[in-house]
This record gives sequence, structure tokens and C-alpha cells, in this order.
Amino acid sequence: MPQNVAQKLISSHLVEGEMTPGEEIGLRIDQTLTQDATGTMVMLELEAMGLDRAQTELSVQYVDHNLLQAGSRNAEDHEFLRSASRRFGLWFSGPGNGVSHPTHMERFGLPGKTMVGSDSHTPAAGSLGMLAIGLGGIEVARAIAGEPVYLQMPKIWGVRLINSLPDWVSAKDVILEMLRRHSVKGGVNRVIEYYGPGVATLSAMDRHVIANMGAELGATSTVFPADERVRDFLRWQQREDDYVELLADEGARYDVDEEIDLAALEPLIALPSAPDNVRPVAEVAGDEVEQVVIGSSANPGLRDFMAVAAIVQGRRISPGLSLDVNPTSRELLQDLMKTGAAFDLIAAGARLHQSGCLGCIGMGQSPTSNGRSLRTMPRNFPGRSGTADDQVYLCSPETAAAAALTGVITDPRTLPDRFQLSAPKINLPNVATVNTEMVEEPLPPDQAREVKLIKGENIAGLPELEPLPDRIEAPALIKVSDDISTDTIMPAGAEALPYRSNIAKLSRYAFKDVNSDYHDQAVDVRDRSGHVIIGGDNYGQGSSREHAAIAPRFLGLRMVLAKSYARIHWQNLINFGVLPLEFDDPDDYDGIEIGDVLAVDDLRRALDDETLMVQNTTQDAGYRARHRLSRRQLEILLVGGLIPWLRDRDAGATDRR
Amino acid sequence: MPQNVAQKLISSHLVEGEMTPGEEIGLRIDQTLTQDATGTMVMLELEAMGLDRAQTELSVQYVDHNLLQAGSRNAEDHEFLRSASRRFGLWFSGPGNGVSHPTHMERFGLPGKTMVGSDSHTPAAGSLGMLAIGLGGIEVARAIAGEPVYLQMPKIWGVRLINSLPDWVSAKDVILEMLRRHSVKGGVNRVIEYYGPGVATLSAMDRHVIANMGAELGATSTVFPADERVRDFLRWQQREDDYVELLADEGARYDVDEEIDLAALEPLIALPSAPDNVRPVAEVAGDEVEQVVIGSSANPGLRDFMAVAAIVQGRRISPGLSLDVNPTSRELLQDLMKTGAAFDLIAAGARLHQSGCLGCIGMGQSPTSNGRSLRTMPRNFPGRSGTADDQVYLCSPETAAAAALTGVITDPRTLPDRFQLSAPKINLPNVATVNTEMVEEPLPPDQAREVKLIKGENIAGLPELEPLPDRIEAPALIKVSDDISTDTIMPAGAEALPYRSNIAKLSRYAFKDVNSDYHDQAVDVRDRSGHVIIGGDNYGQGSSREHAAIAPRFLGLRMVLAKSYARIHWQNLINFGVLPLEFDDPDDYDGIEIGDVLAVDDLRRALDDETLMVQNTTQDAGYRARHRLSRRQLEILLVGGLIPWLRDRDAGATDRR
Repeated sequence: MPQNVAQKLISSHLVEGEMTPGEEIGLRIDQTLTQDATGTMVMLELEAMGLDRAQTELSVQYVDHNLLQAGSRNAEDHEFLRSASRRFGLWFSGPGNGVSHPTHMERFGLPGKTMVGSDSHTPAAGSLGMLAIGLGGIEVARAIAGEPVYLQMPKIWGVRLINSLPDWVSAKDVILEMLRRHSVKGGVNRVIEYYGPGVATLSAMDRHVIANMGAELGATSTVFPADERVRDFLRWQQREDDYVELLADEGARYDVDEEIDLAALEPLIALPSAPDNVRPVAEVAGDEVEQVVIGSSANPGLRDFMAVAAIVQGRRISPGLSLDVNPTSRELLQDLMKTGAAFDLIAAGARLHQSGCLGCIGMGQSPTSNGRSLRTMPRNFPGRSGTADDQVYLCSPETAAAAALTGVITDPRTLPDRFQLSAPKINLPNVATVNTEMVEEPLPPDQAREVKLIKGENIAGLPELEPLPDRIEAPALIKVSDDISTDTIMPAGAEALPYRSNIAKLSRYAFKDVNSDYHDQAVDVRDRSGHVIIGGDNYGQGSSREHAAIAPRFLGLRMVLAKSYARIHWQNLINFGVLPLEFDDPDDYDGIEIGDVLAVDDLRRALDDETLMVQNTTQDAGYRARHRLSRRQLEILLVGGLIPWLRDRDAGATDRR
Repeated sequence: MPQNVAQKLISSHLVEGEMTPGEEIGLRIDQTLTQDATGTMVMLELEAMGLDRAQTELSVQYVDHNLLQAGSRNAEDHEFLRSASRRFGLWFSGPGNGVSHPTHMERFGLPGKTMVGSDSHTPAAGSLGMLAIGLGGIEVARAIAGEPVYLQMPKIWGVRLINSLPDWVSAKDVILEMLRRHSVKGGVNRVIEYYGPGVATLSAMDRHVIANMGAELGATSTVFPADERVRDFLRWQQREDDYVELLADEGARYDVDEEIDLAALEPLIALPSAPDNVRPVAEVAGDEVEQVVIGSSANPGLRDFMAVAAIVQGRRISPGLSLDVNPTSRELLQDLMKTGAAFDLIAAGARLHQSGCLGCIGMGQSPTSNGRSLRTMPRNFPGRSGTADDQVYLCSPETAAAAALTGVITDPRTLPDRFQLSAPKINLPNVATVNTEMVEEPLPPDQAREVKLIKGENIAGLPELEPLPDRIEAPALIKVSDDISTDTIMPAGAEALPYRSNIAKLSRYAFKDVNSDYHDQAVDVRDRSGHVIIGGDNYGQGSSREHAAIAPRFLGLRMVLAKSYARIHWQNLINFGVLPLEFDDPDDYDGIEIGDVLAVDDLRRALDDETLMVQNTTQDAGYRARHRLSRRQLEILLVGGLIPWLRDRDAGATDRR
């Protein structure tokens, strides 16, 4: 039977299960990617698992999230990550070297390979014809250890692109159109595959933009074919030899069908505070803007920066407006200098920052309360910028540049009249700068074994988690609405993120913008009963951070009862011994009040069935609920999570020897 | 009588007093400089004073200290400062435009003028033949309002420079030699004037390095003549017309004499954690280094960055070492790009940050605990980097670059053998980039009056301070040793500094590394008795931040009893109604224990004399103490500080109308 690209990637790596949507499958993983915000936990997990050396073809640890180093904690985390990379045989891309996703694509991406990463934007590598999936850290740790990764076989969602983008419209507008059509839940348990004649009009880096923000649709991943544009990209990166063609077979089919006419797109913008709150820019033009930020994994290409530079060149940004430029990597910054684009940006009034994620994850660049910030970034969840009542908009580099010039939200198509500007035509240099010396290679095994992990005083071990009790009877301390992201559950930002290696400290920030007393209330009942959380639809969307499961679990969370879950967070809950249940009747959600005590008896037996009853002992009500756990997942849950499960398994393995 | 440069500057601006060292003099002030860390308070003070418009020839508000914007507070402070600049007729240099001192020198510095600034490194402008003095913010506010500035007539300390610097030795080594010879107290109540044949071998920007760090000697200011090198600099900055010659008269004399043979200097380095802990680099060579930071007002010149670039060009920095580059200004960054120096730095592995003070003031770039950080910055007081037990070294760009290459402290003179490097010969571009559009001009008065101050929720008003009571009887809550800096009294850094406009919040961080309970203990006795602080020699050295007086005063500080004071902090205490007394017998310091209750009766009468008795009611002991307050200062102190004094005075003025 003819296969599409996603099916080829899956079937060539399938080690367990059937390729039937909804069934659990196991995949062999070729590469892994970790970044610093989630990677310290992964390295602690590798240590807890007793790993000697990474078993993948390639594993890379990046430091790109927390580069501010306000206090010793971040520098110490960087040092720890470097020592762990050296110990476990990982590549290490140090602080300031670059944002993981584009840097990985440029240096390490290989068509036809699988990759998992402890970052929800890992699917960006789909731009090269890879199957790349974002997971909780401990799943990535297992992949580094050479184990398969398990997930639900997704539906393959074919999006046929026709024609080509008009002037002033770019790749970001394609993914914003997808979000406009399908919302942040539209991609759940799907892999999006772009195909059709329009694909060839998009460069590999354009595809990165689209694949990266497939995460905002909740998709398991996004793939593009590995075609001549991928070859062009690899040639440009001076490694054409790494090119392998990977195309859908003639007559391949998709589980779901869709079409986008690129020529019909217009500049789009996501309004505060959700990536799917999308409108045509023209509809909101004229509103004052205080800040414009360009960069991040969502618009990382040289082309994106050069487009902004071309628009502001020889002009001056609006007085009082801050234009913050976050170069993707040192290599890109070298190219921005070679082409003069960096100079043009600075001369026009931009602030040039170090390479990294920075403002995208609230690491600096926070706007004023209620001040409009236009960003080429992937996410605008409330407060993610570091400002509690922020007003963050997501848009293309062209739309961002237009606002930087005018000081108000501006449809870039109106610039030609106002500024005598023609649409930027970008001539990239013939080859990209390649500076591989900035990434440290894995040490040879004998040297690696001599390396000691360097743990600063902030790097605490993993908390001990006991098995699931046979009866849960605990109060609901948190009740949240739909589409709550892990940024709300476990905020990052400059204040909390330095504690990413210290769960006890980090847990003080959990749900801080929902209920500032949550931490204390949870600790109060931790030993007596633990607690429960009530969620809406798509609970735990966004970032893959497993801290959003570990920290509440550390505070005594035993069960979440929600309308539905985002894939990664759902798996993270299981991995850390929290039971994720779904309402059978979503209307039951409305009846539960914060403080109600929810109970499930005889848990082990109850979980044998797919549905079970949750009693509300406060209201004397009951709710039918479902779990979707596989046998394997049930096992993991019942022993308290993946770490005790692995320990038991490996002890068993030892016993059997 | 022939005059030296300092005497000419003083006599041409003298409005009150005699030019006898130790006597109080009043000076007319031509220019002012404020930065964001201290400037928000200055703007609140201008508002409290009811100022309509700046009365100086030129006043500039810079935003260079807190650029991280982790949370909304910093962006809101920037917005407030911009609105205040527009309201009061100040120039505004926005966030990321550049570090105040070199930017001011480049754009606004004028030979023969006086300037005060709410930053202790204000004397850097002495490089152009200005008399520039760092003061507490409220003194600067008065200067903006057109009032004279009062200070003790300093001794003029002539430092004769002969010969010229050898290869691999630069201006930083000159000021480190001064600190080696004279310590952080060596310049108290002195103006340093460099003269002699060696002066002509130093460019104006070299002189900036030396004048800037005169602050580390505790000097009131540093001056250089305005000679042909100053003309060269102004020509380079495309404003030769601003040149005015200002030389010492033939036969001019100095109160104190000194000589430095430039040819005899070698690379020097200040060890942790004091700028005067100076050794030859050769003596400490070989110690491992984790971080090298270049930039700041202490080495801001294009030459300094180009020297580092020339040394690392085509090479690679030591693996695992972080080379952090803080460009001085956008203009300098443009020149670094034009010359290719920025490219060379990045290619070698540097992290290029936005323009500003950044790590110098603990705004990011904090090293690990105990990790060695070599910096071209002016200060290494304990914890100033943001890491409590930091190991910060101060050195020249050449010494910094050598360590970046080798990964260990390295005398740069040993590089030629190891790296086949010759000493960098820097060819500056023929003219510097001038980009004045990035600094906003004052609004015309009629437009300025329409501007409303924009106050974010973090911008609190000034606290009300009541008059000095007639009897102090209060416990000593803090006792500190010699050379305690304002960085210890009122830490800056990324955690505390965002609260610079909110004294109640900021005061929680006062003395946090000395006694973490200080805030609570002080609040406990605030209404009952207030409290007292016991200091050693040179109490309150370093940064001019008046927060180091306001925050303890807000917590109930009524009196400090110390061996001696740094000039700016001493005046700040008076300005906020705190009585600064000096031990008549320094040995009395040893007998006082924390918690002892100190008392002074009948304060108003006691202060009529120069000495008075302080009773230790806990130990039944007594100490003779001195105050050095002028009548004017006494008046200010007794009514509770400068704000009530100004209010009373202006009310009186109104009454008399």
C-alpha cells in the first residue's frame, strides 16, 4: 500500500504495536534533544537510572532557555549539564550557542530519522523529513538509554498546499491560518503532513516555522517531505552528503484531509492570550505597540531577520518603542553581520541580545502591564512573558517590522504607500556560516567514565514518590477552565526557572497565578490525604516541562479529573504517579466546587475497567470517569511512576541474571 | 597665582565658600547625568519639589542598569523615566542605547563644564577636562532644579605621568596601580589630577578608564587637561567645534604629589573581593577561570573591544569558558561591526549581549559559586555579581582576552610565545559612528507641560520622614567592618533592583547578606525606638545609590556610628535625616556589641558642639563622637532630611511673596 511520509517514518522505526490510530505503538529513536530548562531533570534521571552512555545515534544537550544568570543557580545548572553531557556521551551546545531546534536542524538534522526531545517544539525537525516528538524529560531519558518510546498511533492529517505566498505574507501566516481554523486542540493525536505543489515554494527553514508551531495545535508532530528544498538547505549548511530523499508514495492517503491556498493568505496575528486567537492584521491595525521582539524557534531563519532588517534599513524605529532582536545562534549572528543585516537593525534602533530563547520563555524582555508586545514567537499564554497581565501578540517578521516602524499594529501590505518600500527580496549568502567548534563532541567512553557530575548547591535530587494508594479521598484544591497550559501550572520565567533542578523550591511557584495559597494548602494535606485537581479541556497544553507534573505530585497531587488532556502532560502525569481521569460526561465538571472531597475506592480493581466512579463526598454526588491508560501505563502508575518502575524492572533483571 | 586644571574648574563655578581644603564650597552645575537605578528616585524627587523644567545647560536621563526586564517592573520604570524626561525637559537615552558615562562623554561632554550625576562613576567625564562628581540622587535633583551643589573643598592630588605604557599594558593597569598604592580610601576628599608628559600618550578614552575608576579610590573626582588628545577625540566624534582647551597654568602646584612611570607598569589584577586587592597578573597566573566579561564604564572604548577581538581572532576560546561581551553602546556596536571586531569575537565563541551595564551591577552574567570570573569592570565587592560567594577579578582587556584563550589567569605578555601573537595594534576607524537619533531631545516647554508622568504600579511615592527626635535611644542592629560598600548595605542585582522605585519593597533586601533578619528586627522597633548601625572605616563606599540611606531610614535608622565615611553615602545619610557620627577614638568600635542600646540626649543642643557623648546603656559605657556637619547640613538633618527642608524653605519663600 502506498505510504505517506509520516507512515514511512513510523513503519521504519516501529518496534511494537500496530499502526492503527489510537493503538499504542513503540518506536525506535535515533536522536534526542534536551534543553536546559528540562534537561537538568533528564540528567538527574539518567543518573538515577544508572546510565553509562547514551545508546542513541546522537543525543545533544542544548543550553538556550535560561541565559540570564541572575544569581549563581543558572551558571551552576549550565556547568552541571556540561559535566553530565561529558559523562553520558552527549554533545553539548553551551549557553549562547543557539536555540536548540534551529541549531539542531542546521547541524544534526537527518531526513528519515526519529527524534524525541524534552521540549514541545521538537517537531520543528519535521522540516527536514524527520519524525520528531516532544516528550516529558523522563521519556527522553529512556530514549537516551536506548529504549523505545511509546505513544498512541496518531492520525495522519494531510494538509495540501497549493500556489505560493503573496508579497508580505510568510510561513508564520501559514501556521497562524492553521491555528485560526483548528484551535489549540485541533491537532491532538495527529501528525500533520504537508504535501502538494505549494510545499516546493517553501524553504526548509520556512517549513521549520510551520512544523515548530504545530505544537500549538496540540499535534503529536508535523512532517514535511525531504525533497530538493531540503537538499538545498543541507547544501547551504555545507553538508549535502547528509541528504536522503523521503517522499510520500504516489497515491498515498491521509486519515484527515485539508487544503490551504497559499496565494489566498493574508498577514495574520494571534491576539492575547492564546495562539489560536487569530485575526487578520488589518482588522486590528492602529493599536499602539510598545515592544516588538523578533527571533525564537518560531521564526529562526536568517531570512526572517534579514526581512526585518530590509524593512527598517535606513529608517528609524518608532520613538519609545523597544525592538528586541534575539539571534537564533552564534552562526546566524555571524551571517547577520556578514550580510550587514545586524548593522541595519542596530542602526535603526534595535536592541541586539545574546543568542537564545530569552523573552519567549519570560527570560527578560517582559513588557509593561497591559503594554502591547508583538512577537515572532510561538506562544502567548497569559503571563508567559513574565508580566502577569501581559498583552502579547504573535505575528510574522514582516508584521513585526511594520509595527516597529510605525509604533502601531500595521498590516505590512500598507507599508509601500507609507514608506515607499517594496516587499523585501532576501538574497541569502551562498553558504551559511558553519562553526561546529562551538559544540562540544561526546568524550570517548573511557574518558567519559572518569567525569564526575558537577552539582551546585541548587541541584537537588529527585523526590522519592511512593506507590499509588488503594483509596484516594482528597480535596480538590485547584479547578481550572479549558486550555490551561503548563505555563500556568508551573510557570517558568526568570524568578521560578532557576529552581528547575530543585523541585521543593520550584513547587512554591506552582499555580501561583491561579491560587497563590496552593502550595501551602497542598502541603497542609499532603501527608493526610493528598489533593486533587479539576481541569477543563486540553488540560496541560503547551510546553513539555515535566515539572508541571512533578511539582504538584511533590505537593501531594494524586489525581486529576479533566475534560481532556494535552498529550505530553497526560503522559507526564502518569510518569510521576498521578492518575489522570477524564469526565465521561463533561457537564459533571460544572458541579464540582473547589474544596469538594473526591474519592475513589479500591483503586487497583477499579482501574481494571476503562470507566470507574469518582464520589464527591462533600456533595454526595458521583461522576463516571474514564482512564485511557495502557497496561504498561497502569503498571507504571501503580508503582508510583516511571522511576520506581524502572528500578523495579532493573532489579528484576538483576535478580534474573 | 597659577592654577591647576581642577582649581580652574572649581573657581570658574564657585558660588559660595573659599577654596580651602576642608571648607564647604558651593558650585554652579552645568550638566547632570542620571541613570535608571537611581534616576527613578530623582524623578520622584523632582516631582515632589514641584519642578517645572530643568535649569541646567543639559540634563540627560540614561537607561543602562536594569535592562533584563524579568517581570513588568523594569519596563514600567523605563516608561516612567521617559515620561519624566519629557515632562521636565531632559534628554532621554533609552534602554539599550548605551552605558551612561561613555555615551555622555561621546555625545555631550564639554571641556570646562561641571557635571553631577547620580552614579559614583560620574567622574569619568573628567577625561574631557570636566569636573564631574557623583552624588546621591536628591543632590542631583537639586542641581537639575538649578541650585548649587555643596561639598567639602577637596585637596588636589597631582599625579605626574611619565613615559608611555609598554605592550600588553593599558589604561586599566594605571588605575589598578593607583589602587594598589593607595587603597579604596586613598582618594577620600581629594580630586585627582593627572598631568605631565605621560598624559599625552593616553587617548581621551584611556583617560576615561582612569577617571572612571577614580571612584574606587574614594576620590571626589578625577580630572585630566583638555588638550590635543581631547580635540582628537571630539573630532573623531564629529564635533570638534565643541573643543575648548583647558590646561594647568605653568607653575601650577598640587596639594599632594605623586608620580607614575607608565613604562614601568606591568599587567595588574584586583583579586576578590576589593578593587584595591591588586597583584601583578604574573603572581596569580595559572588559576582556572570559568568566565570572562568585557565592557562596562571601566573599559568602554572601541579600542578595548578591538584589542580583545584582535587577540582571539581566528582562535577559539577555552572550552566551557563563557566570554561575555557587553558592548558599551549601540554606536560602539555599529563600529564593532564595521571593523569586523564583533564578528571575530562571535566567531571565537563569545556571547554578545545588549548594550548596557548588565553583569557589572549583577544584572545577569552571575558566575557559579566560587567560579573565577575575570572582568574589565570597575568593582568586585562581595556579591555584586549576583552570586553570594563570588570570585570576581578586575583586569585590563588584554589580561581578560588572555584568560579567555587559555582558560586560566594569564599574563598577556606570555601570549606571544604560546600563540605567536604580537601585541595588538589597534587602528580605529577615521570617525566614530554617530547616531544621535537614538537619544530623544527635550520637548519644548509648552509641550513638556502637557506630559503626564506614567507610573506603573511598582512606582511608589517617597516615604514621609519625620524630624530627628531630640533623644535617640535605640539598639544597634548591624555592626560591620571596614570598607563596607553600598552594595552590601542595599544590594542591587536582578532580584532587588526592580524595586528601586518602591522603598517599602526594596527595604526587604537591605543588609540581606549581613543579617537576613535585619528588616524584621528593624520593623519591630521602628515605632518604639528606631535603630542604630555601627560601621568601620570608609563606611558606604562604592555606588552612589541613595537607596542605601533611604531604605534603612525607612526601617527606622536614626544614627550611624562609624570610624569614617565614604563621601557620597555620608551626604546621603544627612539628606534622609540620619545622623552620621564618627568615633573620636576608633578603638571604641571594638567594645560595642550588636543589640547594645546607644543613646544621645538633648540632641539638638549636643549637635551644637563638634563632639558629643554617645551612651551605651547596655554596657554602661560612653563614647566620644564627632559630627562634621556644616550649619546647612545640620538644618537639613534636624527637619528630617532634604525633602522636608526644601518644602519648608519653599513654603517660606511663598509666605514671603
